[in-house]
Amino acid sequence: MRFYTVERAGRCLPALSGDGGKTAFLFADLGIEAEDLAGFIRRRGADGLPDAAEALRKADPGKAFPVQGAKLCAPIMHPDQDVICLGINYDEHAVEAGRFSQEAFGGERPYTIYFSKRVSCATGDGDPIPAYPHLVEGLDYEVELGVILGRDVRGAAAETAEESIFGYTIINDVSARNLQTRHKQWYLGKSLDGFTPMGPCIVTPDELGDAACLDICCTVNGELRQHSNTRYMIQSTAKAIAELSSGMTLRAGTILATGTPAGVGMGFDPPRFLRPGETVCCRIEGIGTLTNTVR
Amino acid sequence: MRFYTVERAGRCLPALSGDGGKTAFLFADLGIEAEDLAGFIRRRGADGLPDAAEALRKADPGKAFPVQGAKLCAPIMHPDQDVICLGINYDEHAVEAGRFSQEAFGGERPYTIYFSKRVSCATGDGDPIPAYPHLVEGLDYEVELGVILGRDVRGAAAETAEESIFGYTIINDVSARNLQTRHKQWYLGKSLDGFTPMGPCIVTPDELGDAACLDICCTVNGELRQHSNTRYMIQSTAKAIAELSSGMTLRAGTILATGTPAGVGMGFDPPRFLRPGETVCCRIEGIGTLTNTVR
Repeated sequence: MRFYTVERAGRCLPALSGDGGKTAFLFADLGIEAEDLAGFIRRRGADGLPDAAEALRKADPGKAFPVQGAKLCAPIMHPDQDVICLGINYDEHAVEAGRFSQEAFGGERPYTIYFSKRVSCATGDGDPIPAYPHLVEGLDYEVELGVILGRDVRGAAAETAEESIFGYTIINDVSARNLQTRHKQWYLGKSLDGFTPMGPCIVTPDELGDAACLDICCTVNGELRQHSNTRYMIQSTAKAIAELSSGMTLRAGTILATGTPAGVGMGFDPPRFLRPGETVCCRIEGIGTLTNTVR
Repeated sequence: MRFYTVERAGRCLPALSGDGGKTAFLFADLGIEAEDLAGFIRRRGADGLPDAAEALRKADPGKAFPVQGAKLCAPIMHPDQDVICLGINYDEHAVEAGRFSQEAFGGERPYTIYFSKRVSCATGDGDPIPAYPHLVEGLDYEVELGVILGRDVRGAAAETAEESIFGYTIINDVSARNLQTRHKQWYLGKSLDGFTPMGPCIVTPDELGDAACLDICCTVNGELRQHSNTRYMIQSTAKAIAELSSGMTLRAGTILATGTPAGVGMGFDPPRFLRPGETVCCRIEGIGTLTNTVR
């Protein structure tokens, strides 16, 4: 199944597709009560998936609408807590990041880097990325596999951690390199309004298949910049959930951004940062494409 | 006024004091509708303060209960978003932190460090701090002035930023130094369950007076370890709100932890980290004392 949030007459409504994203039904037309997807995950979580599947089976086909052409919002527009991100989680990206700023990104790295990113309102597919011309130098893109937890997790074993996953999405971890490096900790440079395009949908684990073997890429104005596979992640999603939850409760609805491959703007010499008018397309196999233009 | 959250028969209920914390009234006895203090701030924010004052004036004195002896919870038990922290925000603490780990804390610092701390459930006055013997080395205390915003803030000027403040509290920014430094970014080492004692109350700006001139101290087993004044903060609260909100929307309910003075455990040679059985008292003039024992 694929979960969407669609805009209708100024309202953002949760929707569900059972045919791989060709058509979808509003939750209201499926008899599923939830004001938004975050609320559904908070209250029902992964346990709500069988009921959602049953509602799809019983749905009135006349209520289906085509997904193509619908105005999509970020599937989770207002995350309950900050997004937890893995830093420098693909080998070749580690090299380019260290080359850009030895102080901010270099050095030995035997342990995973975890940081967070505030998302007061996530950006939908097709919506603009703000450039902040007076505040930001080095506006950069980072395609990442997003993971949404569907259960409260504490003390998970890596072997069973994936059972807590509600679904997967694409996150563009937009970054202001000047703020990220000058404030030492990366929080502010990652957390500006509009810096979290997310979507186009959340795909359930059964539909996606092996999330550790997905083609992942990013183009800017059609030019391929990042291209890798989730199999090259240094820390796996399951081990990250286990490590984080060894001391932290990860609540249902927690969003993880699992790191970006090589090819970001700061990795080029000279760097190729985003400029107004440029269009970023983030693609992950089995999930779809997330397209946003810098304004 | 002082806002509390008190435990009654297993439930955590918001309460309000108009006499400096001698006695308080449950919200329910004041006719204020709110399931908890976070909900009150989210919906009413600073605009709700005059109504709260009016409800206090009309209150039935027979409903007042003594605060001393009441079981206090953290005033905001479940923050809507992660707590935003200022790092290395008192000069002498910068020196001791750099001495402990040049790599993690050293170097030039012309800009404020901002990072975040996940708080799934804040710890109340009198509740234990977990030691995590198999996970944590270097369990440390950090007394900090906590600031709770009462309005959505975006693009605030430093001159008027304090108008957005709902109130002030004490936060003990408990830290696992081994996790904080080995994962490079500080997030995980700050975010373990039980690492955010908060309280004993939230004091409104009119009652507290000048928040930039408060005695702040921390004792461990009665021995004075940290002792400074909020006037020695490097980045003021108002300027931090202005800098953060230049690109980020800070929602009503946002909690800022404004940094800790010198004297934390890692500042001693050899370091004096917390051990099970030790009691940490954090005190800030005009707010009160927050006491927690390591378990």
